[in-house]
Amino acid sequence: MNYVAIVGVGLIGGSFGLALRKAGFQGEIAGVSSRPALEAGLRAGAISTGITLEQATSRADLIYLAQPVDRILETLESLGPIAPADCLVTDAGSTKAAILKKASECLASAQFLGGHPMAGKEQRGADAADADLFGGRPYVLTPASRESDRSRSFRSWLERIGASVIEMSAQDHDEAVAFTSHLPQLLSTALAATLDRRSDLKLERVFGAGLLDMTRLALSSPDLWLSILATNKSQVRSALESLILTLGEMRDALQRDALASLFASGGEFASRLRTKTHEK
Amino acid sequence: MNYVAIVGVGLIGGSFGLALRKAGFQGEIAGVSSRPALEAGLRAGAISTGITLEQATSRADLIYLAQPVDRILETLESLGPIAPADCLVTDAGSTKAAILKKASECLASAQFLGGHPMAGKEQRGADAADADLFGGRPYVLTPASRESDRSRSFRSWLERIGASVIEMSAQDHDEAVAFTSHLPQLLSTALAATLDRRSDLKLERVFGAGLLDMTRLALSSPDLWLSILATNKSQVRSALESLILTLGEMRDALQRDALASLFASGGEFASRLRTKTHEK
Repeated sequence: MNYVAIVGVGLIGGSFGLALRKAGFQGEIAGVSSRPALEAGLRAGAISTGITLEQATSRADLIYLAQPVDRILETLESLGPIAPADCLVTDAGSTKAAILKKASECLASAQFLGGHPMAGKEQRGADAADADLFGGRPYVLTPASRESDRSRSFRSWLERIGASVIEMSAQDHDEAVAFTSHLPQLLSTALAATLDRRSDLKLERVFGAGLLDMTRLALSSPDLWLSILATNKSQVRSALESLILTLGEMRDALQRDALASLFASGGEFASRLRTKTHEK
Repeated sequence: MNYVAIVGVGLIGGSFGLALRKAGFQGEIAGVSSRPALEAGLRAGAISTGITLEQATSRADLIYLAQPVDRILETLESLGPIAPADCLVTDAGSTKAAILKKASECLASAQFLGGHPMAGKEQRGADAADADLFGGRPYVLTPASRESDRSRSFRSWLERIGASVIEMSAQDHDEAVAFTSHLPQLLSTALAATLDRRSDLKLERVFGAGLLDMTRLALSSPDLWLSILATNKSQVRSALESLILTLGEMRDALQRDALASLFASGGEFASRLRTKTHEK
């Protein structure tokens, strides 16, 4: 792997460039992005040059799509006719089934490997890029075909940047993140929207740190989220319905002073999660 | 105010003692608590001696109840026959209407002033006590009677320890915290309990920082919470129902690709909240 083209030089794309460099990658790292994003990527040292998507297909061994989900779908259409057979295309999109489907429809010859780094932070853009963003975090790969030399090489770079690589099917991934990522986002938004409607109560006067925790995700970019959710509707719908059922149970248990088992089960899961990670 | 008795020397009680000292209080600060709690309070410098509740009623100008809600209700019953008229009893309980009702039934002669410091942290116990815990945080007072010299003096100490004192009725307080504190707690517990039931999905493999934020409150002590919720049932029920309605709307909006306005309203509230505080 000698030439990497990062399409979408934002937080994830920029961090991938920085992480490759830090891990000792000696080849070229080029960016395909808007002018301000390229400038931020150059400033951060995440890329060393800006190129077009066409140039990327003729030069790159690896094309890394680090765009929002809807933009990844568009880029796959553009890449279809021009990406050569020896090029590996991979992505960092938050849902996988829709992207894999599009890749199998569009990419005639290039190889495709779906990916999803479970890493991020509140800031956006390459100015916030961080060489250690992926360190110790899960990085899901959803291979649709057998490993090639290119995909083996990419995977070994993911390991060198400290990511914890997990293989699963696109369907399993999308079902899991509906619960662990999309549902928490929707819940934070729903909580904040519910409180927003009660301006009669002047709720901003009386709150503690817990409400700040629980409404932090509500600050996320709607643009990013609407395309994530649109490509995972049925899984997200069923996660939402599970939660609505739990809340109905909770309302009844509250009436009967019988909340202890829900608190025990929730506490148990929250603790188990924390044995899997260093809480940041 | 020359003699303060803190009943329940935990995080809040211990922090109140430390905060008084830091603000220049020269009088005695005694603790009424279990032996291990008194030892922790002495170690932290939050109290200078341990006494009984009976001794507190004969010596203290201010009795500060920093126990869980159910224990505050019990202590008010014990104080009833023995607390003298020139003693101010106040509390730091998380709900106010049930406590005010109990105080008016039990406290024959002593004055009562309900309070709720909107401050805390994850650790418990006087070992985690912090003189700055109340600094810049709302401290709700729910006066049931006219101000006395004692209540004026207490209030001025709250201001000296940096708390932002807000007066409201017990009912208004309980309705507001049902939305800003009790609902977020229940939501975090419900989310974690919902995920706990889907062990078939091996959800601990694939999650990001958002899920850690959203399940942090699920780690809270059930003991504390069950008594808080039991004393605010109807308000909490109606907050839960508002949220369930929003989630139902959200499910329908997801289907119709019409989530933008919920995201806008949630983001708006979450931002507004953060103009009210320095996020810790």
